[in-house]
Order: sequence, then structure tokens, then C-alpha cells
Amino acid sequence: MAQRKHYLFVCTNRRPPGTPKGSCATRGADGLYMALKAELAARGLAKAEVRTCTASCLDVCWAGPVIAVEPDGYFYGRVTEADIPAIADALASGTRVERLVLPAGDFDQATAGPMIPETPVPPPGPG
Amino acid sequence: MAQRKHYLFVCTNRRPPGTPKGSCATRGADGLYMALKAELAARGLAKAEVRTCTASCLDVCWAGPVIAVEPDGYFYGRVTEADIPAIADALASGTRVERLVLPAGDFDQATAGPMIPETPVPPPGPG
Repeated sequence: MAQRKHYLFVCTNRRPPGTPKGSCATRGADGLYMALKAELAARGLAKAEVRTCTASCLDVCWAGPVIAVEPDGYFYGRVTEADIPAIADALASGTRVERLVLPAGDFDQATAGPMIPETPVPPPGPG
Repeated sequence: MAQRKHYLFVCTNRRPPGTPKGSCATRGADGLYMALKAELAARGLAKAEVRTCTASCLDVCWAGPVIAVEPDGYFYGRVTEADIPAIADALASGTRVERLVLPAGDFDQATAGPMIPETPVPPPGPG
């Protein structure tokens, strides 16, 4: 193994559902991380090109789920599993998914765009 | 808040003590993360300059504890709490601590330098 060309840091911080600024995990970040890692491995990108990691809070909760793309130095925000093919395509081609890249205003909750809904919590199963 | 100039991703992955390649957490990464975060906050660097986060395995276990310094694109390795003042000084002055920067050879266990010892596990307390 060598140092990868890109490291993706998927915030998986979790706050209680209903917290005003929300959190990445309550909007599906855990599943997003696992699906993104699997997709990049399936495309043969995981061993040399891209490593996908989880991270603690990246301080842009309101724009979550967020992914810091490093060392490129930009963040993807409001990412869902439906965005994974586009993210993988962009990594493979050396581009980025512009519609997901957080603008400067999204780094401050006062000027950020709208939050995506939290993922509904499933009811407890029987027993 | 705005996007920080630097993000420090401290690997806190933990494997059972004695695992051949070891892990960052068994060499003190949890305490390192907390002490580093506290030091950068105390110096007034945390709000705009540097955010310190934990991360899952960065795949350089043998050189742990490791810290990915982004978007600068280098890793510090074999970091101990004694190195924190030097790391903070370097961030404040726009430099880096060269003696801690991992060379390319450290990204492959076959060519890596020596591992630092795991932190002894304290004996279980009474009761």
C-alpha cells in the first residue's frame, strides 16, 4: 500500500434525533459510509486511489451528511446513497461533483442552505 | 465558523493488544487526540485555524499513532503527547514538524521504520 491519492472522511457524528442542527448520523451517514466504501472497493479504487474513513464532527452539521475530500480540500454536503455513483465516477476521472460541493456560505449555519430531513427512526421490533 | 485552514484527523482505531501491526489506540491515540484538541483550543487556534477530529483506520497502523494533516496532504506518525507543543507551534507558524512527517516508505509495513511500543494496559482495579 502507499499513501492514497484521496482520503474521504465521512462524518458519522450522532446527536439525538430532533437536535436543532441535526447530525450526520441521523441523516444516514453510517449507511452512506458503508455503501461508499463498498462501491469504491468494487470499482478497484480502494487499494491505491481512495481510502474511505469515518470521522468525528466536522462542524458543518446543518449540511450533513458531509464528506471531507482530502487533500483536495473541499467538502461534499447533503450526500445520500443515491449520490455514490456520481462521487465514484468523479474520483475515477479526477473531477468532482459540483452540485454536492459545499460553498463557503454552508460552513456557517446562519448562511447555509436548507437541511435535508433526518432519517426516520424505525419503530422498535417485537421483543 | 468557516472552513478551517487545517483539519487534523487523528486515527483512533483500536485492535486487541498484541495484534502484530498494532493499532493507534493501543499506542495512546485517544489521549493524544484529547490533549491535542485541548492544546489547540487553549492557543486560540481551534475556532478558525485548525479543527481536530478522530478518524477510523488510516492504513498505516505500524506507524501509529498517526495524524493526517489536511489539506496539506501529509501524515505525522509515531506521535506522542510530548510532540503536541511542536505540532501546535508548527501549525501556528505555517510550518510542519519534519521529524514526525511519514516518508513514503512508512506507508508500507515492509519498508516502514520501527513501531513504537503499545501503551501498557493498566491492571484491573479492585472490584
